[in-house]
Amino acid sequence: MKKLRQLLLVLLAGFYLVFPPTLYAQHNEQLTLEELIPGGKNFYRFYPKIPVEYQWYGDNLIALKSDSAWIIKNPEKPFETQLFFTYKDIQNTLSEKTQTVYDVIFAKNNYPLVRFYTSRGIGIYHPIEKQCKSFFTLPPQSKNHELSPDNAFLAYTKGNNLYLLNNNREETKITQDENKNIVSGQAVHRNEFGITKGIFWSPNGKKLAFYRMNETTVTDYPLVDISARAAQLKTIKYPMAGMTSHEVTIGIFDTTTQETVYLKTGSPKDKYLTNIAWNPDGKSIYVAELNREQNHMKLIQYDAISGNRIKILFEETHPKYVEPLSPILFVPDNSDRFVQQSRKDGYNHLYLYDSSGKRLKQLTSGAWEVTEVFGFDEKGRHFFFASTQPSPLERHIYSVDLKNSKISRYTPTPGIHTITLSRSGKYFTDQYSAHDNPGKIDLLNTQNKKTINLSSATNPFADYDMPSVEQGSLKAADDKTDLYYRLVKPTDFNPTKKYPAIIYVYGGPHSQLVSNRWRFGSDGWETYMAQKGYMIFVMDNRGTSYRGADFENITHRYLGVEETKDHMKGVEFLCALPYVDKNRLGIYGWSFGGFMSINMLLRHPDTFKAGVAGGPVTDWRYYEIMYGERYMDTPEENPEGYEESSLLNKADKLKSRLLIIHGDQDPIVVWQHSLQFLNCCIKAGTHPDYFIYPGHGHNVIGHDRVHLHEHITYYFDDHMK
Amino acid sequence: MKKLRQLLLVLLAGFYLVFPPTLYAQHNEQLTLEELIPGGKNFYRFYPKIPVEYQWYGDNLIALKSDSAWIIKNPEKPFETQLFFTYKDIQNTLSEKTQTVYDVIFAKNNYPLVRFYTSRGIGIYHPIEKQCKSFFTLPPQSKNHELSPDNAFLAYTKGNNLYLLNNNREETKITQDENKNIVSGQAVHRNEFGITKGIFWSPNGKKLAFYRMNETTVTDYPLVDISARAAQLKTIKYPMAGMTSHEVTIGIFDTTTQETVYLKTGSPKDKYLTNIAWNPDGKSIYVAELNREQNHMKLIQYDAISGNRIKILFEETHPKYVEPLSPILFVPDNSDRFVQQSRKDGYNHLYLYDSSGKRLKQLTSGAWEVTEVFGFDEKGRHFFFASTQPSPLERHIYSVDLKNSKISRYTPTPGIHTITLSRSGKYFTDQYSAHDNPGKIDLLNTQNKKTINLSSATNPFADYDMPSVEQGSLKAADDKTDLYYRLVKPTDFNPTKKYPAIIYVYGGPHSQLVSNRWRFGSDGWETYMAQKGYMIFVMDNRGTSYRGADFENITHRYLGVEETKDHMKGVEFLCALPYVDKNRLGIYGWSFGGFMSINMLLRHPDTFKAGVAGGPVTDWRYYEIMYGERYMDTPEENPEGYEESSLLNKADKLKSRLLIIHGDQDPIVVWQHSLQFLNCCIKAGTHPDYFIYPGHGHNVIGHDRVHLHEHITYYFDDHMK
Repeated sequence: MKKLRQLLLVLLAGFYLVFPPTLYAQHNEQLTLEELIPGGKNFYRFYPKIPVEYQWYGDNLIALKSDSAWIIKNPEKPFETQLFFTYKDIQNTLSEKTQTVYDVIFAKNNYPLVRFYTSRGIGIYHPIEKQCKSFFTLPPQSKNHELSPDNAFLAYTKGNNLYLLNNNREETKITQDENKNIVSGQAVHRNEFGITKGIFWSPNGKKLAFYRMNETTVTDYPLVDISARAAQLKTIKYPMAGMTSHEVTIGIFDTTTQETVYLKTGSPKDKYLTNIAWNPDGKSIYVAELNREQNHMKLIQYDAISGNRIKILFEETHPKYVEPLSPILFVPDNSDRFVQQSRKDGYNHLYLYDSSGKRLKQLTSGAWEVTEVFGFDEKGRHFFFASTQPSPLERHIYSVDLKNSKISRYTPTPGIHTITLSRSGKYFTDQYSAHDNPGKIDLLNTQNKKTINLSSATNPFADYDMPSVEQGSLKAADDKTDLYYRLVKPTDFNPTKKYPAIIYVYGGPHSQLVSNRWRFGSDGWETYMAQKGYMIFVMDNRGTSYRGADFENITHRYLGVEETKDHMKGVEFLCALPYVDKNRLGIYGWSFGGFMSINMLLRHPDTFKAGVAGGPVTDWRYYEIMYGERYMDTPEENPEGYEESSLLNKADKLKSRLLIIHGDQDPIVVWQHSLQFLNCCIKAGTHPDYFIYPGHGHNVIGHDRVHLHEHITYYFDDHMK
Repeated sequence: MKKLRQLLLVLLAGFYLVFPPTLYAQHNEQLTLEELIPGGKNFYRFYPKIPVEYQWYGDNLIALKSDSAWIIKNPEKPFETQLFFTYKDIQNTLSEKTQTVYDVIFAKNNYPLVRFYTSRGIGIYHPIEKQCKSFFTLPPQSKNHELSPDNAFLAYTKGNNLYLLNNNREETKITQDENKNIVSGQAVHRNEFGITKGIFWSPNGKKLAFYRMNETTVTDYPLVDISARAAQLKTIKYPMAGMTSHEVTIGIFDTTTQETVYLKTGSPKDKYLTNIAWNPDGKSIYVAELNREQNHMKLIQYDAISGNRIKILFEETHPKYVEPLSPILFVPDNSDRFVQQSRKDGYNHLYLYDSSGKRLKQLTSGAWEVTEVFGFDEKGRHFFFASTQPSPLERHIYSVDLKNSKISRYTPTPGIHTITLSRSGKYFTDQYSAHDNPGKIDLLNTQNKKTINLSSATNPFADYDMPSVEQGSLKAADDKTDLYYRLVKPTDFNPTKKYPAIIYVYGGPHSQLVSNRWRFGSDGWETYMAQKGYMIFVMDNRGTSYRGADFENITHRYLGVEETKDHMKGVEFLCALPYVDKNRLGIYGWSFGGFMSINMLLRHPDTFKAGVAGGPVTDWRYYEIMYGERYMDTPEENPEGYEESSLLNKADKLKSRLLIIHGDQDPIVVWQHSLQFLNCCIKAGTHPDYFIYPGHGHNVIGHDRVHLHEHITYYFDDHMK
């Protein structure tokens, strides 16, 4: 479910570059769903945007404006800009001059070259020499393009096979599998374990590691596309908890010898090969191997020429689960030192190892988590990262000195920070937002911590009466853990009135809904409902992220149980507010949040008037192996937990109104979940309502998302009045 | 859609023999859905039942009581009964005495033998000799069993092939098709054209005609069964209007030579081979062949030994469509005379032909229809039939004298009559009901028309305050045609009050909802809603049955248009009633009735407050060839009609509340219909509601049918209050 949340953010992020927000509305008008919901016709006018985008070209800052790059030679004087090149300049160097350059990427490891993208292909441009160094036309139907670090090759997939193109436009077919269920060069293990791709170039670009997944052993799951003249079958492979899984191997293709060797990863074949990392010398490769039970990880080094196992560097075990999410990172120009992220002490922290697998030191520690890493400075002395140290609601930027372990903090301003380092590490740009800050970019000198604001987003809602969003905390069901919430109050809030209140919930692992970002993360639908006179309450229960292993894994083997208890504390809190009408409580969530919504209604049948559950899990037996068995083990190992977590056997408990919504093409939480639940309700004589978004997958995206929120709103209006 | 309506009646009919109604409820209580809806726990207690079942054994009347047959030797004295045999008597003659006899059939052509059924097989019993003459154990997985008239063979299907078993338990595999999409011995053409089976024994039992259908050319339609651990695909063949159809041939298997010949029916191969009839001599066979356009029928005689065409007897054409529904019937012991049913003069009537194809005379005529035929008396002089002559709301019994064309009527009592003739034709039993008669069986002497009542059903609702059901007529949209309605008034009807009113609609061909049967055909849900204070209005619009060709085919090429106009006349009528609240009108229908409900809401958006559409057609392009092209031609031939009839392009017109319901296994109106409509509504920004009955086909049957009606009731309660 992780994957789809990311997708949505990408959709948002990609889009607002095209339609810059223009404030044209008048004071005191109400915002519409077309303005508040992603996919809405005017959504991007109201999405806070920082006007200028910055990238690093060495230690020179680059300001990107629609179709030109402006160089700031001295970062200490960031407003002294000079035209560096236009996209048209690049276009003019191409043999086919009709193709438009639509994006340019200043990647640190390409310096002094930049990559550019046209509708036809990917090219390499030297902005100083004003020359196009190479251009790869994308072969038809090709996907998952990965340029080699030396820009000599383009690797990609077509169908289920992996291919390579060299500078002479010669194509090599690296894998030759005719069976479409043997897939190479693509992300495996359903994007769990931090896996986002299937092609991994060695640092010198001579070798190519790739995932190869044999899915022939996995159950077919039939999806039906009803948009065709006669409905058509689209079968996917969907490995359900406890069933036979796919088998993954890792191939290494040598561009010199044109030969492929497979790592001898051995048996059992359904283990997880995660977090692929190359040794800087390109001679060996590291894989975090996790057993199917997901409680024992081994970091193993393999020889990239023979495929033989060289050694196990170290192992990690946990009675509940181990979840490796980040590949090791070698110190620049030092094949003997790497940094690893691990939750082995209960929180995600940084560790320094030598290449024998010996732990040299723990670089960070404490009851907080490292949340993001940004790499080293040029000399490999300082390692930059973000953490929750000041508060789980914030992300601040730090570096750790590998020699003396000294930690420096760079960001005094509250909020959620993320940075981009300059080539040397002397500077970074810091992009951050907070509940009262729609977005800023600062430039920071890491040596003297001198900060200059480069650009700021304006508040797109400045001319509107906006609902207030408050943030606070309450105690979890264990009576000791702090849980954070946000409370959105109706626009015309009057504390002497009684308002209906809706809980928006997600509640699953890998999530955090409440943080000190713009409006505490409150989204457009919350604003819309507040305009209509609803209170909205959002809280991160135990089982969610960034609070450490114990906070998260309290739910192990019994998903939905502790989470529901915590959320009932939220209900208690709400009911104690004098301006909340406790007879008009609603709840809404999607995916794990759909599961949570139904959980709340069935386990506490007298609490809510109405609920809405989108794409809900209803029984973890129907969920996939990687995510499902991590949190639930297999149905055979944990029959009591599956029974207790199932909603199917509780369908008779439904008393309030419940609208279930599902996309008929959902490949993540398959449609079976909600249809089976519906069937159980029919047998039990209870009456949920139902809606389908034909053609949609796990999330309803595009303009239909406006309809979705309108539909949900109507439902609450119908049943909460 | 015809087929499923029949299925439902069969389910009802089959069931109430097992659970006789027992009246135990108290006065003034309200009836529940469990009591009023088929599938409900107490439904059969309230389904009117005639206590004794009668069959004919020659001219002896037999009274069947649970597990014994009682003979009435003199039909003039029907209450002088004598035990004939018990089912246990038959059981004792079997070699395996543990199997229970559960049914006995006294078929005229088996006399003096009777057929009996056990869980293991079918047997032949001589009740006078008290001997079992033969017994066929049913092979595992066998279906579509057809005993030969001489009881020497049992024909049946296993999978897609046709088999034969003889008295020595030797099995012959008549067809050998490995391709599962070549199906023999089963009904073809999707049960249109009156086709209900695929095996046709010659009168002497020496030859077996059978349908063979090649469906390999037909589009696959994917159904998904979500009840499995991982959802499973169940593909059906579904030929959509305008697409490639199946190809049907007719084989003749000779039990003596063991050889099969196929009738040389020639091209085009997608024509319809309907109404198979054997010549009494068993040497030739008659097929009503209809072109795919369904406007040209040829009655063709084929040689049963060579398969050669002998001759075309006659042809029928019509500018709209010809729909042959009944095989020709030969006069007993006369291979030169047969009776044909045809609508060629505009109404379904009887014609007498000789074997050359020469029409000797029209036996019946007038602005009414022959609705059922019961065959000849022993001498072949009188032909018995039912017709609508007195009123389209009634069915009365007549015979026609083939010599002098004299027509005799036998049934003076109003209502719906159907009869079973004794072997000689001297007697028949007449089973009938009327709005105030829950069911009676009379014995009638055809010579003197003397009538004796044998048995009567009691009114199961006698102890209840029942809603009144009134019947009347109004003028169609053409301002001249009479349309018949029933109006169910709330139980506690008070003419000074205003009541919400719901139209229940079907409206498609092959249907008649209003007739002079028990409570004018008003069903349990109507009673339930009337108890709750709703008026229910049911009307048969133009396009429905038993009113002649013009009445029906007015809808040709534009289904839904004229029907909707007629139903708006019904709305006018309702709105003029002082006790109807015209601001609270609702509409509900299933299948064609679902199509009609949505039609009414979209074509008249300001008329209704709420509607419910079950398994609705939403675009005839997604409906099957046989039914669809009869009424609509192909999408290529009639693009304007398809466009006008489509609901998809009118989704933006939805203003009232609309609940759409579909079974996810519907093989008749495929799920695509309602999902596509939903999609169009989403794109158009309108908001129907939706519900699914997982695992159900075109109708929701079994106990879930109670939930269905509860769900529909809740919907009207939610939105009509």
